[in-house]
Amino acid sequence: MSLKEYLAGQTRLVDSALNRWVPDAEAPPRIIHRAMRYSLFAGGKRIRPILCIEAARTVSDETAGVEDVACTLELIHTYSLIHDDLPALDNDDLRRGRPTCHKIFGEAMAILAGDALLTLAFQVLARLECVDDRQRARLVDELATASGTVGGMIGGQVNDLEGEGKPPDPLLLESIHRAKTGALLRASLRMGAIFAGADQAAYDALSCFGEHAGLAFQIVDDLLDVEQSSEQLGKTAGKDAAQHKITFPAVYGVERSHAMAERERLLAHAALERFGPRAARLRELADLIVQRKA
Amino acid sequence: MSLKEYLAGQTRLVDSALNRWVPDAEAPPRIIHRAMRYSLFAGGKRIRPILCIEAARTVSDETAGVEDVACTLELIHTYSLIHDDLPALDNDDLRRGRPTCHKIFGEAMAILAGDALLTLAFQVLARLECVDDRQRARLVDELATASGTVGGMIGGQVNDLEGEGKPPDPLLLESIHRAKTGALLRASLRMGAIFAGADQAAYDALSCFGEHAGLAFQIVDDLLDVEQSSEQLGKTAGKDAAQHKITFPAVYGVERSHAMAERERLLAHAALERFGPRAARLRELADLIVQRKA
Repeated sequence: MSLKEYLAGQTRLVDSALNRWVPDAEAPPRIIHRAMRYSLFAGGKRIRPILCIEAARTVSDETAGVEDVACTLELIHTYSLIHDDLPALDNDDLRRGRPTCHKIFGEAMAILAGDALLTLAFQVLARLECVDDRQRARLVDELATASGTVGGMIGGQVNDLEGEGKPPDPLLLESIHRAKTGALLRASLRMGAIFAGADQAAYDALSCFGEHAGLAFQIVDDLLDVEQSSEQLGKTAGKDAAQHKITFPAVYGVERSHAMAERERLLAHAALERFGPRAARLRELADLIVQRKA
Repeated sequence: MSLKEYLAGQTRLVDSALNRWVPDAEAPPRIIHRAMRYSLFAGGKRIRPILCIEAARTVSDETAGVEDVACTLELIHTYSLIHDDLPALDNDDLRRGRPTCHKIFGEAMAILAGDALLTLAFQVLARLECVDDRQRARLVDELATASGTVGGMIGGQVNDLEGEGKPPDPLLLESIHRAKTGALLRASLRMGAIFAGADQAAYDALSCFGEHAGLAFQIVDDLLDVEQSSEQLGKTAGKDAAQHKITFPAVYGVERSHAMAERERLLAHAALERFGPRAARLRELADLIVQRKA
């Protein structure tokens, strides 16, 4: 199966899990379920859930139901996008080529839709039947910690906001990105490992892969903001520079940033060595993260 | 011990649990931990956690650690207040007699602080050591469901926003309040019951108590908004009428609303019959909910 076919199949799997867990657009109160679905089903690449699913497959042959775990990562990711796009934060009108949630549903509903997606992620973990309760506790902890203030996504977002306009500092840059996008990407791998019953060594290896793939992802994200158009990205390009964000191109320049992304890709590959051919897809996903154009 | 002494002791117990679980004000990123603590330690009455603790004590003599479970209800409640007070929602400058979170820390940080408290609630449930993993799964489910869109707090908030300016309809009123405040209050009792290993009958009885006490709480909340001053309430009074909210006094008038609150208080008492004297404090708490002046 080609990578393209594989990705299409995984996306369908993730979308079908999301569709099962998110209340129907006709379920009252309709307006918030419509807002949640508007942002969830907006053509996202599902990178986090696919990494989660593939981590599980790298460890085990029995992965039925892993998509239920995986979709919680997309719920968290989507909530963070909705809140990040709000006027009080990044104030963005465009996301995945469409008006942002608050442009369609208003700010109040966008705030509540984000809250609801965040809450739903934990409700799904509480209810899914394909894990035992020890795994469930670990999954809730991974997801909450990766999303939280101490080394997690919210902490990175705060440092990002606070860093605007500050001199481009390499240490601050790395701490922002490890937290803001790295923690949830790493959690994607870890949650797949936990689902599959990975031993400590496999968990650590997948976690290490996640760290490098996550950093590569963010470096490339910063580069795309500089190098691509809004039309190509489906979101406003050139925003980082306009907001004086601390980014990899701002700190290291474009050429060196490309080299750094390539280095992280190779380190991600190296982390997978113990898995041999079982990790072929994960290697392809690391390549894709670095080579993507949007 | 007098009720006043009892409440002071319980508040200290809850505050000490919150203090242990919420990152220190000096932990980076400091700004968000300061914002979270500003709203958490603002003199809240801790009604939800105290109901949770007392529900556990009504069922069992071994309740050490229940305050860790209980404090997650206050994390959720506080996040909901921070987000409700935002300009895009209720646009309130005053809460518990102090400027609201976004007035001090700005809108961006208030949004993120709310997100962080919501996330932390589930992290605490994932990590607390005083329950087994089956109980933990049930606690996560209770808290997420009570906070969610379908019959939960966010759903109630959406219906409340959507109801502004609509004709005062008794059915809409009850559905708003059952969800907006009732669900989390009922969850407080249920989570205490789960912690204490209650059997189904005890869980149902405490749940029934929570429903009636929760409805009484909201009726009285609506009445206080009409009858008390902003100074007495520590938040803006008269707001419901100004925003054309659907409230109990608006639908039934003040006198009939008082009678309804009293009826709910008696139904709450009746739900506790099977517990005999063990439930004395819960009865006092139901009385307090109806008789409070702020």
